[in-house]
Amino acid sequence: MALVVQKYGGSSVADAKSVKRVAKRIAEAKRAGNDVVVVVSAMGDTTDELLELAAQITPLPPQRELDILLTAGERISMSLLAMAINNLGIKAKSFTGSQAGVITDAAHGKARIVDVVPERIFGTIEKGQVAIVAGFQGVNSATNDVTTLGRGGSDTTAVALAAGLNADVCEIYTDVDGVFTADPRIVPTARKIDRITYEEMLEMAASGAKVLALRAVEYARRYGVRLHVRSSFSGAPGTVVSGTFGDPIDPNAPDGTAEHGAQQEENAMEDPLISGVAHDRSEAKITVVGVPDKPGMAARIFEVVAASGANIDMIVQNVSAAATGRTDISFTLPEGHGPDALAALRNVKDEVGYEALEFDDQIGKLSLVGAGMKSNPGVSARLFGAVRDAGINIEMISTSEIRISIVTRADSLDDAVRAVHTAFGLDSSDGEAVVYAGTGR
Amino acid sequence: MALVVQKYGGSSVADAKSVKRVAKRIAEAKRAGNDVVVVVSAMGDTTDELLELAAQITPLPPQRELDILLTAGERISMSLLAMAINNLGIKAKSFTGSQAGVITDAAHGKARIVDVVPERIFGTIEKGQVAIVAGFQGVNSATNDVTTLGRGGSDTTAVALAAGLNADVCEIYTDVDGVFTADPRIVPTARKIDRITYEEMLEMAASGAKVLALRAVEYARRYGVRLHVRSSFSGAPGTVVSGTFGDPIDPNAPDGTAEHGAQQEENAMEDPLISGVAHDRSEAKITVVGVPDKPGMAARIFEVVAASGANIDMIVQNVSAAATGRTDISFTLPEGHGPDALAALRNVKDEVGYEALEFDDQIGKLSLVGAGMKSNPGVSARLFGAVRDAGINIEMISTSEIRISIVTRADSLDDAVRAVHTAFGLDSSDGEAVVYAGTGR
Repeated sequence: MALVVQKYGGSSVADAKSVKRVAKRIAEAKRAGNDVVVVVSAMGDTTDELLELAAQITPLPPQRELDILLTAGERISMSLLAMAINNLGIKAKSFTGSQAGVITDAAHGKARIVDVVPERIFGTIEKGQVAIVAGFQGVNSATNDVTTLGRGGSDTTAVALAAGLNADVCEIYTDVDGVFTADPRIVPTARKIDRITYEEMLEMAASGAKVLALRAVEYARRYGVRLHVRSSFSGAPGTVVSGTFGDPIDPNAPDGTAEHGAQQEENAMEDPLISGVAHDRSEAKITVVGVPDKPGMAARIFEVVAASGANIDMIVQNVSAAATGRTDISFTLPEGHGPDALAALRNVKDEVGYEALEFDDQIGKLSLVGAGMKSNPGVSARLFGAVRDAGINIEMISTSEIRISIVTRADSLDDAVRAVHTAFGLDSSDGEAVVYAGTGR
Repeated sequence: MALVVQKYGGSSVADAKSVKRVAKRIAEAKRAGNDVVVVVSAMGDTTDELLELAAQITPLPPQRELDILLTAGERISMSLLAMAINNLGIKAKSFTGSQAGVITDAAHGKARIVDVVPERIFGTIEKGQVAIVAGFQGVNSATNDVTTLGRGGSDTTAVALAAGLNADVCEIYTDVDGVFTADPRIVPTARKIDRITYEEMLEMAASGAKVLALRAVEYARRYGVRLHVRSSFSGAPGTVVSGTFGDPIDPNAPDGTAEHGAQQEENAMEDPLISGVAHDRSEAKITVVGVPDKPGMAARIFEVVAASGANIDMIVQNVSAAATGRTDISFTLPEGHGPDALAALRNVKDEVGYEALEFDDQIGKLSLVGAGMKSNPGVSARLFGAVRDAGINIEMISTSEIRISIVTRADSLDDAVRAVHTAFGLDSSDGEAVVYAGTGR
């Protein structure tokens, strides 16, 4: 008997019919002999509707009150889901984040989980009942106030609970079949990835793959929680995210993981070179033009930008022109952080002595992710070649151990993704050859 | 400086615009120097919408889950209201029933308040902030589960908090101007009652006047909480419900009560004979035909009906016909309790030996309420005369110390209410003569 944490997103419980469908799936997992704990998001567009209500009241709601408002969403979905499961003859009880023991810090709207004390959840599964837990929310134990976890909060709740309960697997149900080698809306030949490491998934999520929240993957890696990302609309296995492909697989693990054990162990000797191609259209580029080429100027610029609250991603500094003694510094950041960063930079114009600021929100970022590229010198060359052959200009480049990212014009991004996806043999028409047999291997 | 508890019903906070209007009124009370605690119901039709969602899931939702679902409604209204008040420059914080210390028993869906421990509310008003509390809900401290109080729950929350906080007044805001001498939709000449005793208000509420929940009035009488029922749409004073009309009035009391102090003290010597005419169309009549006229038969019938969960109201037993040795017993009860009561009676047909059952849901009840009628023998005669003169047949009669109720055909009820209202000089066209100068005085 396994202990399974299942997480269902808002699109999986968008209306009464969907809630009943999800209840059926939960009942099946329970009847198959598992202990089941379910984390659920607010139904469909509920959160947006509540935000819209708040916006009708005031443009600047106190964050404490906004958190109270938003948590009404999960309260509705969790109680309806519990009703639907009870209706199928299986006892189920719903719990708020607070009741489930999800303890957070006091940062309303973006609280971090500091502890999980799931005594009531243990008690519920010990009685053979299903526990439904509200995602996205917790309680600040110092003030007893309700908090929300911000973006990706429900995924994080699920992973944190799975860690706190020492669950066998955390299944993340969504409206797609798993993690893909690229966004299927852009690359119709994209393939579902059967398994991926935490590190690769982190790079994919950080590079724009939306199926799993970055925070949740970080949490899962830290506590060794095995994730299974899969569709709530089909019974097919999805993508397993775990430490290494060679992990021994529990033959009693819930549906969709056990059957792949053998295959995974075989492949452990031969990691795929490339996991997939992620893309991100949500960033913008700021260029600080004509920065005096003196020590400390770049440091000062990034100090100021960081203090404005902006998350800096990629940075490029042009070679300074000897003639002018000046250089241009470009960096990317989430588009929404642009105004604050620009305002902060304007404040230090005289101090830094730069000539001008440029803001460009028409950029796109492509990231190629794969643990196998670590020891593979041919990957960058193949990536740049594919993009060049597609007639697309590369504006910025950054790399990590297992990722190469490039910035292009936004309107060239889709073509670039398709070209790279093909160049690395990821297209499903290429058959089962998941493992890249490139020059460097 | 007074401590005021204000309660706003769902119709007062039906949309964002109404929430802002209510916030303005709260801000005014706060700026006038009062400490303000606000109890709020769910917005407009929210509760019905949530019930409809539950009905789409299952016809028999577990009551624990239904309570969790329904409490989402106040969560939304209370946080929006807190936002709106903050937006006016006054600090406000919202609290669930649980956070506000509303402790109940475990009877989900109809929980009774067993204690109020409003530490967080005291803390909030001590900081000069407005506390917003979710009506209709509490927490069962044994299980830590959320409960709802059922019908009239928000009024009861407000009164319980006012008692627990030792508030100077509990203002119940609604969509009418106060308690009226009759329903103005039936009697256009009905007058607003300026003041009424707990006992009279109890009889009015029990007899069908909907403006205040019976439970809340009982609670207010028990703890001596002064109520002020008034409109959230106008600044006019409404109806004060208190122990006796002679109560000394605090000159620093919030708006609408102080100004009436002098007038109330004057009138204390001369209580109005009649408070008003209530009506109720929600009852039905069951007649047990041909009950053997033996000792214990009536007792057995009412034992069985009570065990079915029905609330019996009026009872009439006809004089038994000596020839047959049988009698008919009629009683009224809430229409919805009819099916269970009938089923229970059918089960004892042989035991009791009655001949038949009749069910009549086309009845109406009129109740004349007034503390002054205690010592006034002319009141019943005048009531029966007025109804007879209107050509309406009286089917049942019951009385208490300060109330006379009659049952008529449902389609005669409005005419009866108008006739009685006029006969007791309650019509507003009769000028300011609130005090009846009838035969008996």
